[in-house]
Amino acid sequence: MSTGSKATSDAEADSVLSPRVLELLETGARVFAEKGYDAATMRDVSEASGVSKALLYHHFTSKEKFYSQIAMRSALRLNEYVFGQIPEDASAAEQVRAFMIATAEFFEEYRWAWIAASSSFWNDPDRHRQAERLKRRTEFELKLRTLIAKGVESGEFNEVDPAMTGRLILSAINWMHRWYVPSKELRPPEIVDQYFGILLGGLSKR
Amino acid sequence: MSTGSKATSDAEADSVLSPRVLELLETGARVFAEKGYDAATMRDVSEASGVSKALLYHHFTSKEKFYSQIAMRSALRLNEYVFGQIPEDASAAEQVRAFMIATAEFFEEYRWAWIAASSSFWNDPDRHRQAERLKRRTEFELKLRTLIAKGVESGEFNEVDPAMTGRLILSAINWMHRWYVPSKELRPPEIVDQYFGILLGGLSKR
Repeated sequence: MSTGSKATSDAEADSVLSPRVLELLETGARVFAEKGYDAATMRDVSEASGVSKALLYHHFTSKEKFYSQIAMRSALRLNEYVFGQIPEDASAAEQVRAFMIATAEFFEEYRWAWIAASSSFWNDPDRHRQAERLKRRTEFELKLRTLIAKGVESGEFNEVDPAMTGRLILSAINWMHRWYVPSKELRPPEIVDQYFGILLGGLSKR
Repeated sequence: MSTGSKATSDAEADSVLSPRVLELLETGARVFAEKGYDAATMRDVSEASGVSKALLYHHFTSKEKFYSQIAMRSALRLNEYVFGQIPEDASAAEQVRAFMIATAEFFEEYRWAWIAASSSFWNDPDRHRQAERLKRRTEFELKLRTLIAKGVESGEFNEVDPAMTGRLILSAINWMHRWYVPSKELRPPEIVDQYFGILLGGLSKR
């Protein structure tokens, strides 16, 4: 996974945060990813970061709010990472596949944050942040639809509805966190690659 | 939508419940789905149903037990309804389509309970009930895989992996509750029918 575009996005999203807060968010993300949200404690984060629990609570108020900041940061980076992985001079099929695989790579790398973001998506108490996330989500979905629509227009794809096809693809990826268990035989990009193959060729024999 | 087998299933599952209890279960499903399990209180259910909290506790003992009855009721009826809608002497494509459409019909009719069951699936405090639900879920998934595998064996379908194809299909349906809003132009069975068409024909032009 190339990390170039992710770094740029970090810089933009993080320009208002102090270096100490940024470092705590990174450490927190790692601790939550390793232990899971329920098992990880603010004490764990305190020990991993060398910062007192009191100071952690001073910066983030609660474990829940700390976690939601971490999740939010990762959600912000999804679009930029995925869009950066789509080859420009390629067939629509290759572009859709690249979109799917990059999303699965992102899911794999930020799985805990993804789950946190996913489960809090519709209940974000911060209205402004919620609006920002919805905007990015829409941008994300529209990008995929555009790739599909281009394939339909060029005659490479069948006359599928880009919106419904995009939904089908993103549903499959979005649902993955509900059943995927790391250490199983297939990694998320491989799972998604199989989904892509099924979708591209279809069920019905030619 | 043929309601014959659902009616039978309803009648069986609910024959021991009084009309008042049934109504409370319906109201409760809506309240939990709207507020989420944690935020919803028995007071909310009491207010929405016009029944006193005391009577609610008399019928259901605790919020947790009330909720689990709601989720369980809907989960119990899914398999029976869907399996009953699959035509016996039909192509694999027609059978897979019938499976998908019936599942979407069920989702449409029991949407609130579906959401309740879906969000509590992995955290059911009742181990026995959790095991029962997992058993039915496995049965449900295996049924779909079997239909797909038959299509592959007969040469009607391409050599797709039945497990992965089943996952792709069920993911699309399972994710629907996260974005579907009633009163939009398409009903769930129509959405799923479009998914089926995309999957059957594939993206790539023949």
